[in-house]
Amino acid sequence: MNALPAHAAHAAQRHALAAALGDGWLDGAACEPYATDVARYGGVPLGVARPASTADVRALVRVAVAHRIVLVAQGARTGLVGAAVPDRSGTQCVVSFERMRAVRGFDPSNRSITVDAGVRLSDINRVAGEAGLCVPIDLGSDPAAGGLVGANAGGSRLIKYGDVRRHVLGVEVVLADEAGTVIDALAPLRKRNAGFDVAQCFIGANGANGLVTAVSFALAPLERSSCAAFVAFASYDAALAGLLAFERAFGEMLSAFEFMSAAAVGCVAAAFPALRAPFDASAAACYALVETATGMPGLDALLEERTVATLDALASERRVLDAACAPAERFWRIRDALPVAVAQDGVPLSFDVSFPRGALAGFVADAEQWLAAAHPALRCHAFGHFGDGGCHLVVSIPHAEAERYGPLQQVALRGALYDRVVRAGGCFSAEHGVGPVNIAYYRKHVPAAHRQLAGAVQQAIDPLGLVGRVRY
Amino acid sequence: MNALPAHAAHAAQRHALAAALGDGWLDGAACEPYATDVARYGGVPLGVARPASTADVRALVRVAVAHRIVLVAQGARTGLVGAAVPDRSGTQCVVSFERMRAVRGFDPSNRSITVDAGVRLSDINRVAGEAGLCVPIDLGSDPAAGGLVGANAGGSRLIKYGDVRRHVLGVEVVLADEAGTVIDALAPLRKRNAGFDVAQCFIGANGANGLVTAVSFALAPLERSSCAAFVAFASYDAALAGLLAFERAFGEMLSAFEFMSAAAVGCVAAAFPALRAPFDASAAACYALVETATGMPGLDALLEERTVATLDALASERRVLDAACAPAERFWRIRDALPVAVAQDGVPLSFDVSFPRGALAGFVADAEQWLAAAHPALRCHAFGHFGDGGCHLVVSIPHAEAERYGPLQQVALRGALYDRVVRAGGCFSAEHGVGPVNIAYYRKHVPAAHRQLAGAVQQAIDPLGLVGRVRY
Repeated sequence: MNALPAHAAHAAQRHALAAALGDGWLDGAACEPYATDVARYGGVPLGVARPASTADVRALVRVAVAHRIVLVAQGARTGLVGAAVPDRSGTQCVVSFERMRAVRGFDPSNRSITVDAGVRLSDINRVAGEAGLCVPIDLGSDPAAGGLVGANAGGSRLIKYGDVRRHVLGVEVVLADEAGTVIDALAPLRKRNAGFDVAQCFIGANGANGLVTAVSFALAPLERSSCAAFVAFASYDAALAGLLAFERAFGEMLSAFEFMSAAAVGCVAAAFPALRAPFDASAAACYALVETATGMPGLDALLEERTVATLDALASERRVLDAACAPAERFWRIRDALPVAVAQDGVPLSFDVSFPRGALAGFVADAEQWLAAAHPALRCHAFGHFGDGGCHLVVSIPHAEAERYGPLQQVALRGALYDRVVRAGGCFSAEHGVGPVNIAYYRKHVPAAHRQLAGAVQQAIDPLGLVGRVRY
Repeated sequence: MNALPAHAAHAAQRHALAAALGDGWLDGAACEPYATDVARYGGVPLGVARPASTADVRALVRVAVAHRIVLVAQGARTGLVGAAVPDRSGTQCVVSFERMRAVRGFDPSNRSITVDAGVRLSDINRVAGEAGLCVPIDLGSDPAAGGLVGANAGGSRLIKYGDVRRHVLGVEVVLADEAGTVIDALAPLRKRNAGFDVAQCFIGANGANGLVTAVSFALAPLERSSCAAFVAFASYDAALAGLLAFERAFGEMLSAFEFMSAAAVGCVAAAFPALRAPFDASAAACYALVETATGMPGLDALLEERTVATLDALASERRVLDAACAPAERFWRIRDALPVAVAQDGVPLSFDVSFPRGALAGFVADAEQWLAAAHPALRCHAFGHFGDGGCHLVVSIPHAEAERYGPLQQVALRGALYDRVVRAGGCFSAEHGVGPVNIAYYRKHVPAAHRQLAGAVQQAIDPLGLVGRVRY
């Protein structure tokens, strides 16, 4: 009831942090850009620490431990679940890695690169690209290395390359203990089974457990040949048959199989007339961007020939209604416009869910039917990563219906849809991870035994509970 | 000093275990086959529990917790570090998964399979192969699923496919707590970032933390086209240049780049005359089995044409001295005969180490020179996974020298060589993992901060210390 002692405590905390960080410390209005992420979720930071080195992070941690200050690591603020922004209490300190942007080591002969946590994916790939290499994670955003690790990002080429975990050779982490212990597990080794791999404690941890200060990535050869097709499928079952046919024909060269419901493609055409589908297929249930690619040069013609042959066979089975081949970029523009286009269709309620691949089609049909019956005023747009079972679902609330679907109704609708996801064998969070935005669904849908285990691990690594927004 | 109470306690433990396991319990002489692994390391089991189901494992765990019995999970006994066999105290209970061999679910449309922990890799691949799929882990042994997970096996095609961790979609684990808590994280989802991924606590944990009872694997398309070459390189640097040239030419299609020192190839020819190298290249420093492969059918001729072109270019630069293409099997017979052949050259001291790829060549040269100078009577054979930095090194002690190189001298030699590995930026355990055989090197070469973190995680998951042979 008496705010004064709390304020005094905060003043002491700010003073100690400012002393530790020097000109790396931001206070007051200068903190505003760091308070909110791209999803417009945010709070009120105690201040913003901007360490320039691992030594700075250690100094920061020692102060945080002494004063029991919660530290929230922040990269490029591209997260979608609020895991990198503070709460509204004004007690949590943002740790921005924007000043830690050094490439510590690039070893083309080892196909590896070691970077500070604040280096963005695009910067990694610019450096690696000069040697014909890349971190093959294909995202709609440009996160920093630390964010990639914390979210274990997936993206549109996961079917070929796997998630971030698959490409992380090691991490450097500062623990929130009195000593500011540094775990230097950065050695860029592809085979290292020398005891429990502690790096795994920080990959996909959503910013919990410790502060990731640097990352070593394995690099993949850049793609040198590719082919893309835009395909209209008669049904979701036909799309699944198409996916399997392409895998039989191309093996590991299938690099993307992105689906879009007919309604979603219609939204793109309405919002961006220049991005119409390359043909009219009114009977199509869904479309797919099917891409094949390889690091072997000179295979463009072969990939296209095989793509056409595979599509012809599917067309003769009435699974494919129409298709077009073109440089991949044209079709990716349609795919990449989808989130923006469907968001213009009304107030968007977005879901990022995943399924065994055979269950994805059934879920989309179930969701569309249920919404049509229970919420006929709403529109449903499904798209995403058919090849890896990832599904982005956007329920559009027409602006005229906004009043009927206020915050409480939205929460009810969201909960009901997640229940259907879980009943279909799916997961409520495919790529975005867990943060304050969706932690309630984590508590509801992840079994208690998993949560207790994750919590025990977190308690062991961060016993004071000072790192990140998520308590498992 | 009084053995009687201990014996009585063991009797009570055996009785309780027998009651819990029924005919799944083995005692006395029947335990002998379970006491020792393929590396002939072993001890004396209290008994052998052979659960037939996860329910059996829970019952077993409850007894173990009540009586504080250490449980040592055992699959196919193919481990090389003693992590799956009991110590000599007679107090540790082996948990053999040989009766848990069910395929719980095989979903070709999801490219996934869920199996009991006791199912062997070859059995998984037999089932998956019928649908053109596989777990693409290529090993000299045939471990069970639980062992694959515990060791995070790598193998000869890691350069293309990655390690076991990359293919595990989920696990089922029984924790050693009073309830026998089951963590069921088997859902075969490729994208699941729904909080900290608890499965990672058991992958590469060398049998510690919990008892893995089932595993879900992602499956890869079988290779449909391939080409293999046997190549003589003028130097190790030339071999590295060759590796990079093949990666530029083939991208992700390079599936193996296995090197063999000239001395090691000589051993094979001496031991198995039918497995001579396909040509004579007396000036070669080393040889490599270079394999390219893809899931796309019909590319054999193209792969061979490009292989020949790549080798021609390397020959014109005097890096390649000679080379031959042939069906891969012929060359793999030479490669697979290496461990046996070099073992016949004397008493073998084997090392399983890894490096950044650019450092591997330097290390081999350093090790050979050091051994020639300090231990001229010994022979050194290097071979392994050049493409992923993995190096098997066998120091042969001629039988005539066996007396001079007794156990103490061997330990000194081993320690000195590991020191050189670590100084070269390498790791003392690439694939084999950590167990009682090499835990001393773990304690020496892994930084204290890593070990404390691994220990804290282990303490959090298995607070009674009842699972496995390794205390981190």
